[in-house]
Amino acid sequence: MMNIEGKNVIGFSNLSNGTVGIWAINPTTGDPIPPLFFKSTPQECEKAVVLAAEAFATYRKMNREKKSAFLDQIAIEIEEMGDTLLDRYTQESGLPRGRAEGERARTVAQIRLFAQLIKEGSWVRAQIDPADKKRKPLPKADIRSMEQAIGPVAVFGASNFPLAFSVAGGDTIAALAAGCPVVFKAHPAHLGTSELAAKAIQQAAQKSGMPDGIFSLLIDDAVTIGQQLVKHPLIKAVAFTGSFTGGKAIFDAAMARPEPIPVYAEMGSINPVFVLPEIIESKAEQIAEQFVAAVTLGVGQFCTNPGLLVVQKNQKMIAALQDKIGQTEGGVMLTKSIFEQYDKSVKDRKKQVALLGTGLRIEGHQTARPHVFMTDFATFAKKNQLHEEVFGPSSLVVVVQDEQEMTELAKLLKGQLTCSIHGTDEELAAHTGLIDILEQKAGRLVFNGFPTGVEVTPAMVHGGPFPATTDARSTSVGTQSIYRFTRRICYQDKPGALLPDELKDKNPLKIKQQINGIIA
Amino acid sequence: MMNIEGKNVIGFSNLSNGTVGIWAINPTTGDPIPPLFFKSTPQECEKAVVLAAEAFATYRKMNREKKSAFLDQIAIEIEEMGDTLLDRYTQESGLPRGRAEGERARTVAQIRLFAQLIKEGSWVRAQIDPADKKRKPLPKADIRSMEQAIGPVAVFGASNFPLAFSVAGGDTIAALAAGCPVVFKAHPAHLGTSELAAKAIQQAAQKSGMPDGIFSLLIDDAVTIGQQLVKHPLIKAVAFTGSFTGGKAIFDAAMARPEPIPVYAEMGSINPVFVLPEIIESKAEQIAEQFVAAVTLGVGQFCTNPGLLVVQKNQKMIAALQDKIGQTEGGVMLTKSIFEQYDKSVKDRKKQVALLGTGLRIEGHQTARPHVFMTDFATFAKKNQLHEEVFGPSSLVVVVQDEQEMTELAKLLKGQLTCSIHGTDEELAAHTGLIDILEQKAGRLVFNGFPTGVEVTPAMVHGGPFPATTDARSTSVGTQSIYRFTRRICYQDKPGALLPDELKDKNPLKIKQQINGIIA
Repeated sequence: MMNIEGKNVIGFSNLSNGTVGIWAINPTTGDPIPPLFFKSTPQECEKAVVLAAEAFATYRKMNREKKSAFLDQIAIEIEEMGDTLLDRYTQESGLPRGRAEGERARTVAQIRLFAQLIKEGSWVRAQIDPADKKRKPLPKADIRSMEQAIGPVAVFGASNFPLAFSVAGGDTIAALAAGCPVVFKAHPAHLGTSELAAKAIQQAAQKSGMPDGIFSLLIDDAVTIGQQLVKHPLIKAVAFTGSFTGGKAIFDAAMARPEPIPVYAEMGSINPVFVLPEIIESKAEQIAEQFVAAVTLGVGQFCTNPGLLVVQKNQKMIAALQDKIGQTEGGVMLTKSIFEQYDKSVKDRKKQVALLGTGLRIEGHQTARPHVFMTDFATFAKKNQLHEEVFGPSSLVVVVQDEQEMTELAKLLKGQLTCSIHGTDEELAAHTGLIDILEQKAGRLVFNGFPTGVEVTPAMVHGGPFPATTDARSTSVGTQSIYRFTRRICYQDKPGALLPDELKDKNPLKIKQQINGIIA
Repeated sequence: MMNIEGKNVIGFSNLSNGTVGIWAINPTTGDPIPPLFFKSTPQECEKAVVLAAEAFATYRKMNREKKSAFLDQIAIEIEEMGDTLLDRYTQESGLPRGRAEGERARTVAQIRLFAQLIKEGSWVRAQIDPADKKRKPLPKADIRSMEQAIGPVAVFGASNFPLAFSVAGGDTIAALAAGCPVVFKAHPAHLGTSELAAKAIQQAAQKSGMPDGIFSLLIDDAVTIGQQLVKHPLIKAVAFTGSFTGGKAIFDAAMARPEPIPVYAEMGSINPVFVLPEIIESKAEQIAEQFVAAVTLGVGQFCTNPGLLVVQKNQKMIAALQDKIGQTEGGVMLTKSIFEQYDKSVKDRKKQVALLGTGLRIEGHQTARPHVFMTDFATFAKKNQLHEEVFGPSSLVVVVQDEQEMTELAKLLKGQLTCSIHGTDEELAAHTGLIDILEQKAGRLVFNGFPTGVEVTPAMVHGGPFPATTDARSTSVGTQSIYRFTRRICYQDKPGALLPDELKDKNPLKIKQQINGIIA
């Protein structure tokens, strides 16, 4: 059985020279969970980055079968940790066993999806524009290009998905799949789970013949190590999932570097849901029930949590919402600071708008109670604070007078991960203007559903305009997320024998090649 | 015949309320060329941006045939301007008639390439992951995504390509093709050429039924209008070609916005050329001749100008270079400030390193003489200034002692648009280590050639790591450059009838769709 040591995982070594201790905390009790972890030292951070850069030199050119087998092995190691991992997950997060199992399933499925993607190989988007020696006035050169790995990547995990958006989560796996080593800064909300996942990667790397340094895990509960990573000249991209404050600070630091680097910070959003009038007639109950379930799922600690419901004045809908809210339960929040922030935000909101309803009161340490507020368009338009995310099981219903106010509200929205719209087929068809506005605001538009489930598929976009993310051109979920960690390399007149297999005329890897811009 | 008025082109209106005049200057004489232009006022800039945002609402959804016809019409309008455009081009740039004709041909070919790209339609990378209602534990949603236009784009043209990288050049056309209106800040080096090209776009827009404001041209010879554009909340991306100082200032301003936006600044580089020893035995003369031709082409005013030649000690090569340099001629530079900067840079370089040779002296206003300098590895490694671009017909030969110094030099390089390497097939095969380093430094690797010709093809990458550009993931030449101005939009469970044609099951546009990640 795997032991948790409280140490950094630096390449193939587990070590700790730090002297400042951090405890993992059980959120259901507030008690520390052994062992004591030690903050990484600047030297440990430096070592991890330098090793990553060395590993990059060999890993970037490694063949697809070997890389793919490495990813598959990570999935196996995670599964083989069994209860050790699941128990630690539930202890550290306060989330139930079922969630831990579900998230593990999602995590390994995601890893296997990327393993398959790079084994197949077409993701490099190989393009070949052959030479034309007879072209006048000048002969045309042979031009070929494909995606290549960008370099070592720093990743910051999210508090709210200790597996799927953390150490062996989407960002790490997409970077490894692209050919980039990863230096990961553990989230203090789940240090033990982080160490276990890091050791799964470490073991997989050793078993698969990967270079030392392809993955490291560093420990910190402040910004010191994170800033060191983001500013390090050998780090070539950053991925982050978390708060606006955290993401924006990382973005600013990266842009101020002598050599700015891409930052993919997913910073959450309020994920507005618009409900058109007709559909309420037949589905008020169902929409209210699903909305309340989405607001309270995972104690509301999802970046796709619907923090805003926009509906035209309708007593049936309001009554249905009140009824459903009253039946919900809250739960233990992930960390003390998340709980305190939720508590403060709810108190602030109570001063600004009316309360539509609350969930049942549950006793317990750090336990949040669901809150749904209600206001009108004018108030929403006036108060900027109502446009901000409340992280937790809280949402705001804005009752608008008419279609025009609904459209005006849509125009006021900042960038979102998702926008959702409920309507009958007829009324959706009659509201293309509203849909047009929403698709300029969000990465994903959900029809007659709620945004909380994020499918891990090739077409998924989990991203969106600022401030939902710092790079609207990217997604952090799905296979397209690999392109966050690549750039195209172009070869002009490279001798055929020296071309990467992906760009050879005979296409030995049997991938999809584009010839003169057309997929063969 | 088209008249040059010295006015802003703001949507479908040509107007000028400014009172500060700017003359276009004939670089061969230093004389002003009528008419007098007037700097845009802040109100004119505001008007152009607001019109662009209004135009975006309709243009982003316009069908591909109409957009494509618009682009084709721009090419026609440019060709129909005939000598009016070519004469103004040569007057303002000092470049010869043949170059003007060649660049016009490149410009219209580029426009037609994009017209064809968007007419075909597969560029949107349509992805469809159909629903699976039987999936356990939860049914799988229908997820579809494609590229969509990002919003109004600000474009800053280059001094050195008055057509191909200016008003109707690659950046503008890629943005228009993507579905983005453009507000263009004219380069003061070719104000008349800019106005003519802007009117070509204006006429094409009117004839093709485009919305007013899809394109505007603003006039300034300072940074006021440019900064206003970059900071404007309705501008959603910036493209720039020019100096590091200019590009970096725009980048910094864009990153400091409340909502940061992508900046694609192509800021040039020194485009190092490595020559391996064996090939010199048979090709010293030819390489020397082609190198000197590349250094002096267009009076060295290319962002792909080879500013560095790295060669192992070889008397034959040095003699060949000296011989060829002595036969070159310089020419009139584009602007007074470019000439003065060249003059200063050459004087500085004379203080730092030895002169290998100069071209023939030509008399004439603002006329640059070619200079090739020579130094050793230690000096190059020590002096940062030698790593900087000298814009003009100047280059530096670094004579290294051995292969190891060559590799060390490669490691020292900053990000480049291009790196080139000359060698026999055998010695290239023996230098994969060097090639590996170079492909981490550049966007394009040229084998046995020089980087000055940039093919406009699907596989081209005209870009590279910072400081060559501010976004290594992008190219500013070739069809891939369209993705600078798009982001993916994802639809979940959108009713089939409301889907864009690109994402419909029946694929009415007959484009390449990816189904579950696989191109059908």
